[in-house]
Amino acid sequence: MDTADLTVGDLDEDALVALLARRLPLGDRTLVGPGDDAAVVAASDGRYVVTTDVLVEDQHFRRRWSSGADVGARAAVQNLADVAAMGARPTAVVVALTVPQDLPLAFVTGLADGLAAVCAPLGVGVVGGDLSAGPNVQVAVTAHGDLEGRPPVRRGGARPGDVVAHVGVAGWSAAGLALLAVDRADRDPQLVGAYLRPVAPLAAGPAAAVAGASAMLDVSDGLVRDARRLAAASRVQVALDDPADVFADDLARLGPVAAGLGADATAWVLGGGEDHGLLATFPPDVPLPVGHPVDGFRPVGRVVQGEGVTVGGAPATAVGWDHFAAQRSPGHRRR
Amino acid sequence: MDTADLTVGDLDEDALVALLARRLPLGDRTLVGPGDDAAVVAASDGRYVVTTDVLVEDQHFRRRWSSGADVGARAAVQNLADVAAMGARPTAVVVALTVPQDLPLAFVTGLADGLAAVCAPLGVGVVGGDLSAGPNVQVAVTAHGDLEGRPPVRRGGARPGDVVAHVGVAGWSAAGLALLAVDRADRDPQLVGAYLRPVAPLAAGPAAAVAGASAMLDVSDGLVRDARRLAAASRVQVALDDPADVFADDLARLGPVAAGLGADATAWVLGGGEDHGLLATFPPDVPLPVGHPVDGFRPVGRVVQGEGVTVGGAPATAVGWDHFAAQRSPGHRRR
Repeated sequence: MDTADLTVGDLDEDALVALLARRLPLGDRTLVGPGDDAAVVAASDGRYVVTTDVLVEDQHFRRRWSSGADVGARAAVQNLADVAAMGARPTAVVVALTVPQDLPLAFVTGLADGLAAVCAPLGVGVVGGDLSAGPNVQVAVTAHGDLEGRPPVRRGGARPGDVVAHVGVAGWSAAGLALLAVDRADRDPQLVGAYLRPVAPLAAGPAAAVAGASAMLDVSDGLVRDARRLAAASRVQVALDDPADVFADDLARLGPVAAGLGADATAWVLGGGEDHGLLATFPPDVPLPVGHPVDGFRPVGRVVQGEGVTVGGAPATAVGWDHFAAQRSPGHRRR
Repeated sequence: MDTADLTVGDLDEDALVALLARRLPLGDRTLVGPGDDAAVVAASDGRYVVTTDVLVEDQHFRRRWSSGADVGARAAVQNLADVAAMGARPTAVVVALTVPQDLPLAFVTGLADGLAAVCAPLGVGVVGGDLSAGPNVQVAVTAHGDLEGRPPVRRGGARPGDVVAHVGVAGWSAAGLALLAVDRADRDPQLVGAYLRPVAPLAAGPAAAVAGASAMLDVSDGLVRDARRLAAASRVQVALDDPADVFADDLARLGPVAAGLGADATAWVLGGGEDHGLLATFPPDVPLPVGHPVDGFRPVGRVVQGEGVTVGGAPATAVGWDHFAAQRSPGHRRR
């Protein structure tokens, strides 16, 4: 049989696990790696950061759009972004993978390679995993990080007068998804790539912590929706400046694509999810950290007294992503 | 609408997460709990143990047999058993949960209660989670533990002359599953409970480490199959004594049920999975730790030079559980 035709069901579980383990990095902080009941990871300052996120086929990705490597990279990035959003440096991940037995083996080995491509350059180890059969592909990653002696940067520390700043792209993933949805991926492969395989400004998280950020979170569900979470946790209002000014670069990049699709680039910037930028607040006397991936932090607003989010002075409408609501038909909303 | 009729699709994601978070314990070592991008957990000796395992509906459990509380408890136990098998004390878990939107809300709240029932008495926190829609119920738990300054007890430390010891029940889960499979759960609710909601001897893991165990693992895939893993990692042979002698208690308990089903109790004891006992080796001069759950460690064999596993002096046949092989039709085996 040609190996290109193999499916995961053609290998027994131990053989498949061994095949995948060989493709994954051990990591800089790993004291005991995969192959035992559990791994042992160093936590030099006596604490570790931990977060988990799952990618579900046909909910977060489609196999006809995303390669195994795309899914593996995205699963890693979305979790490492959460670690970075605490101001921590990512150190180790574990992966629980569910796959149909007729899944091409190449998809699974690609998925391992995608995980490795994100983790290995950062010294992040893939220190454990579990593999099971199931009806579709699901990748649950748990990521860990090291605060290096610093306090965590939480969502609740923003104070009136703080500067609101953002690092990363805004709306690119939503634009890429919109192109895929109408079979126009050829129109802009870079934007499609931003959806399939987002690049998060991971180094900016610890940099913001070192600089003195008062609050921070990963922008995964949309800028306004995530800003609202920061505002609620901090009991303040996040007043975003007019996106035409502060997100001019993103709007210029996305405008022609939006126009071609009859879509609204501003809605992508403010409401699009899964870009995995960071939204942070800094006391007014703190210079914003710059020089990090995707141009460093840019000021995008102010923290003021009040609640919720305003955009250019007006209350923000509810936009963002809800994995349950998104599936619902209009007649099936909450009663 | 009666709340008893609610499904997860009737609540938005934030409301559902909040509902579940209220039912879950924070834990003794939790520095920052759920609600931020990531949790922060204390690792007092500068290391942490980490392991992940997923439970998949119709693969590891059926909703017609298992309540939400059963699934939550089992998801916790199987992961905490892996932590204990390293000689560590469990401290914190995170949970990635995938559910169909028509799943009764009571199943999900029950699942949270089942997690809490196992974790809370141990001071283990459920420090983070992710919730997504998907085609069936899947619960990926990542568990963490504290080695309390001790070296981890790995699989590879067994030496010829060591005593092989076991703690926990053997074959009970397999017997319970066999009863469920023929709709005879009423025949022996205790054995069925051992499958639906296993009780692992979690305190015995750290106790074995303190006592000086040379190797240890969680018996999740069957005694012989897991013993073979310990043997391979240690480059030794595990010589199990005649089960009629060393597992006489389990065989006496299971014998009548096996006879009633035309099954083989010895095959359950040697090959049944998911009992989550611990198999450990101890140098010959070390007194076995006793007084722990399910009667403490009992000697069940010796470590000798060689490879693989023998039972009562004869090579063990291959028995145990393979999640992919179990699904395969006879014509679909590896070629």
